[in-house]
Amino acid sequence: MKKIDLNSDLGESFGAYKIGNDSAVLQYVSSANIACGFHAGDPHVMHKTVALALENHTAIGAHPGLTDLNGFGRRNINITPQDAYEITLYQVGALYAFVKAAGTQIQHVKPHGALYNMAAKDAALAEGIANAVYDIDSSLILYGLAGSELIKAGSHAGLKTASEVFADRAYMPDGSLMPRNLPGAVFSDDKTAISQVLQMVTAGTVTTADGSEISVQTDTICIHGDNAKALLFAEKVNNALNEAGISIKSFKD
Amino acid sequence: MKKIDLNSDLGESFGAYKIGNDSAVLQYVSSANIACGFHAGDPHVMHKTVALALENHTAIGAHPGLTDLNGFGRRNINITPQDAYEITLYQVGALYAFVKAAGTQIQHVKPHGALYNMAAKDAALAEGIANAVYDIDSSLILYGLAGSELIKAGSHAGLKTASEVFADRAYMPDGSLMPRNLPGAVFSDDKTAISQVLQMVTAGTVTTADGSEISVQTDTICIHGDNAKALLFAEKVNNALNEAGISIKSFKD
Amino acid sequence: MKKIDLNSDLGESFGAYKIGNDSAVLQYVSSANIACGFHAGDPHVMHKTVALALENHTAIGAHPGLTDLNGFGRRNINITPQDAYEITLYQVGALYAFVKAAGTQIQHVKPHGALYNMAAKDAALAEGIANAVYDIDSSLILYGLAGSELIKAGSHAGLKTASEVFADRAYMPDGSLMPRNLPGAVFSDDKTAISQVLQMVTAGTVTTADGSEISVQTDTICIHGDNAKALLFAEKVNNALNEAGISIKSFKD
Amino acid sequence: MKKIDLNSDLGESFGAYKIGNDSAVLQYVSSANIACGFHAGDPHVMHKTVALALENHTAIGAHPGLTDLNGFGRRNINITPQDAYEITLYQVGALYAFVKAAGTQIQHVKPHGALYNMAAKDAALAEGIANAVYDIDSSLILYGLAGSELIKAGSHAGLKTASEVFADRAYMPDGSLMPRNLPGAVFSDDKTAISQVLQMVTAGTVTTADGSEISVQTDTICIHGDNAKALLFAEKVNNALNEAGISIKSFKD
Repeated sequence: MKKIDLNSDLGESFGAYKIGNDSAVLQYVSSANIACGFHAGDPHVMHKTVALALENHTAIGAHPGLTDLNGFGRRNINITPQDAYEITLYQVGALYAFVKAAGTQIQHVKPHGALYNMAAKDAALAEGIANAVYDIDSSLILYGLAGSELIKAGSHAGLKTASEVFADRAYMPDGSLMPRNLPGAVFSDDKTAISQVLQMVTAGTVTTADGSEISVQTDTICIHGDNAKALLFAEKVNNALNEAGISIKSFKD
Repeated sequence: MKKIDLNSDLGESFGAYKIGNDSAVLQYVSSANIACGFHAGDPHVMHKTVALALENHTAIGAHPGLTDLNGFGRRNINITPQDAYEITLYQVGALYAFVKAAGTQIQHVKPHGALYNMAAKDAALAEGIANAVYDIDSSLILYGLAGSELIKAGSHAGLKTASEVFADRAYMPDGSLMPRNLPGAVFSDDKTAISQVLQMVTAGTVTTADGSEISVQTDTICIHGDNAKALLFAEKVNNALNEAGISIKSFKD
Repeated sequence: MKKIDLNSDLGESFGAYKIGNDSAVLQYVSSANIACGFHAGDPHVMHKTVALALENHTAIGAHPGLTDLNGFGRRNINITPQDAYEITLYQVGALYAFVKAAGTQIQHVKPHGALYNMAAKDAALAEGIANAVYDIDSSLILYGLAGSELIKAGSHAGLKTASEVFADRAYMPDGSLMPRNLPGAVFSDDKTAISQVLQMVTAGTVTTADGSEISVQTDTICIHGDNAKALLFAEKVNNALNEAGISIKSFKD
Repeated sequence: MKKIDLNSDLGESFGAYKIGNDSAVLQYVSSANIACGFHAGDPHVMHKTVALALENHTAIGAHPGLTDLNGFGRRNINITPQDAYEITLYQVGALYAFVKAAGTQIQHVKPHGALYNMAAKDAALAEGIANAVYDIDSSLILYGLAGSELIKAGSHAGLKTASEVFADRAYMPDGSLMPRNLPGAVFSDDKTAISQVLQMVTAGTVTTADGSEISVQTDTICIHGDNAKALLFAEKVNNALNEAGISIKSFKD
């Protein structure tokens, strides 16, 4: 039986500031990427989110980001590969403490926002991140964009990797994502998105912007839960996968 | 043969800001308390300081503080016991990552500044800290002021504890430190300080401000390295202990 | 014709984090206290909020807080009076820039959360704040709890002051607020709150917890807008005041 | 009589962290660029540094930077022009408060580090900064690299500008600075640097890396004071300028 991992970013609240619908989206995903206090999250939010993920039997991952709370980790900062190594190590360690205290384990690490995007293209940054993950625990799984430098660096470091694909984004013939500023880059139609998901999971291919079909490594799909529309889509993806006989499972299961 | 642990706060630089003489003071101490990024320190400084301690065969400890970089963790903040639990867990975890990557282990945890002082008197805060240390690794040693609530909380949580004494501070008849604002609270004379150290280590007693002698649990002594005078004193204490046949050793040795 | 100022805390969002219903609550208040980036707010939020207040013809005030974004400025930090002076000056200056760029003026300064509460009781902190306000612009109005040290310090510094009262809080016979942890401290019933407001505004008195009537300086009333219930109450207070022939006006009008 | 402005970055300490030799370098410069709390500095340091500059009759400028204390504002962050506008406005306003409280005025604004470098090349960012300066006070002088986009944006916004040149950096035939990673980019020899300064100030020209001579607008020269060598160079430049009959004066004098 086919299976697929669905992951979502969680624990992005901070102090008095609430963001996301963690309880709701946990119904639909198998892996939770928990923010670690640099771009979002704080010790209290991490504590609570680890407990919530555990209650929902969702696999727990660290979601390290750039040191940029005000920019929510979405702005590129020209850090060095050593910076990438050190901020990853720090943040995964911080989450490790809450996970250890809760009697469970970290399954994976998925960089956030600008760190994820920069590491998709920059081999040296990607290597910094991959080495940090390996050095804290070589059994962790590194999540990255399918076909990215981050996935290559993870494999090269000796880590298991999970190639991430996107339900609602158009792909270019070379396997990269169509830039968001181009028309048609983001699907507004849920049916197109779900059809793309099913093709990716069952056939391991995606139909690109020019109509050609290419293969794409499909290990995990990112699901958003920040608003009602996103949650409805999460539910639809779940239903479509179930109907197609595909089970939603984390890698630890 | 008698032995004693000398500890010092290290890794308190931040970005472009350098503080302390870590290399120099490491010659004189057996245990290093490494700042974890809240009151001081950052991922790069932690990385470097762990490597430096390891080179010097100095035992490594986490030195968590309040979330107050601008106040260097020296200003009381009325956090809850749960806050204390969570900020301790987070920071010890962050250091754990660097220590794990370096192939070694954390020996101890010593709270910093206002967190140390508040936890000396506030049983609930102390319990929060002790539980965090226990929950991340029950084999860690909790450092606290001799006779403090923190030491009691550590024992109660099931942790080994190390009672800290001060070389250059006058003690009150009840075993507490004379408040810094009173005359005679801080010894300006190195000889008095060294004589107090020797009495504490060899006899387990201290002569208090009113001339009486009381017993004081003496497991570790805090050594400062922030200026030439402090380093000279560190050297003198080392020499005096060596001459008295007392070896300077961390708890892991 | 009687008039009263209604004020509300605004501009407390931060980066990707949204908090409050600034547009909605601006319908009901005459003065806006805009967060200045220490406990909440950031340069972008300040920019936007100043524009929004201006559109609504609402008087603009600075709302400086403690350096504690994670605690939303609600946790006491034992700062010195000089710290209070300096963090107030900094934050009022920061808001001044946006207000100047928008072609308008700051009307008032109201400290936030723990800074407000500490300054209500601590004369030295209050003096630090009042002197900062005076030193940046002696024509600014200082908002503080009616009867507080902050109001006294403002008058002593030569500032106009605005004494703030609370609609939904019970008062003690000495004019202080009943501590929140005591039963009956916060009115759950809107009618009681509105009746207290009308008595304060029209008669300048409040009926205290023991049934006695005392006079209370009533210059401004704090209105919250963080949820639907709070907004409904804001509307009810507006209606009740209008029906009683009391106009809602800032001090600049 | 010829005159030239010498400027230096000051007030870059933070809390317990001391950086620079502000008192020493103030002997040699006519304008002080004071950090505003984003890349360096804090309210207390700003307060003290304004007083120190005033004592030394040194003109005061704001030195706004990127929101990156850990990177000391030296790492590019891909902010938008609106971000640049807003962080500049905020920081200049914060310094304005201390300057106003001290009974004096801001003379100029010079962006720091990565913000300065990005604004030298990016016309839109430069415009954001220039507009912020104009909007808080159109009489302020904008400092920027000679020939840069920032100088153009300042003129375009209607500001007076001051073109900055470097004593110890080699220039390219197009007037840009030779990148630091190329051999010969930074002069190790004080004599070469002083000779370049004298040529720039007296002739308004610089001899570029290929031996050609080009004109360069020379209004102000940046002087560093972070170590003994830098201070000695500052003294030498002062002496050389004095001997050549050139007085060191800020623009307000």
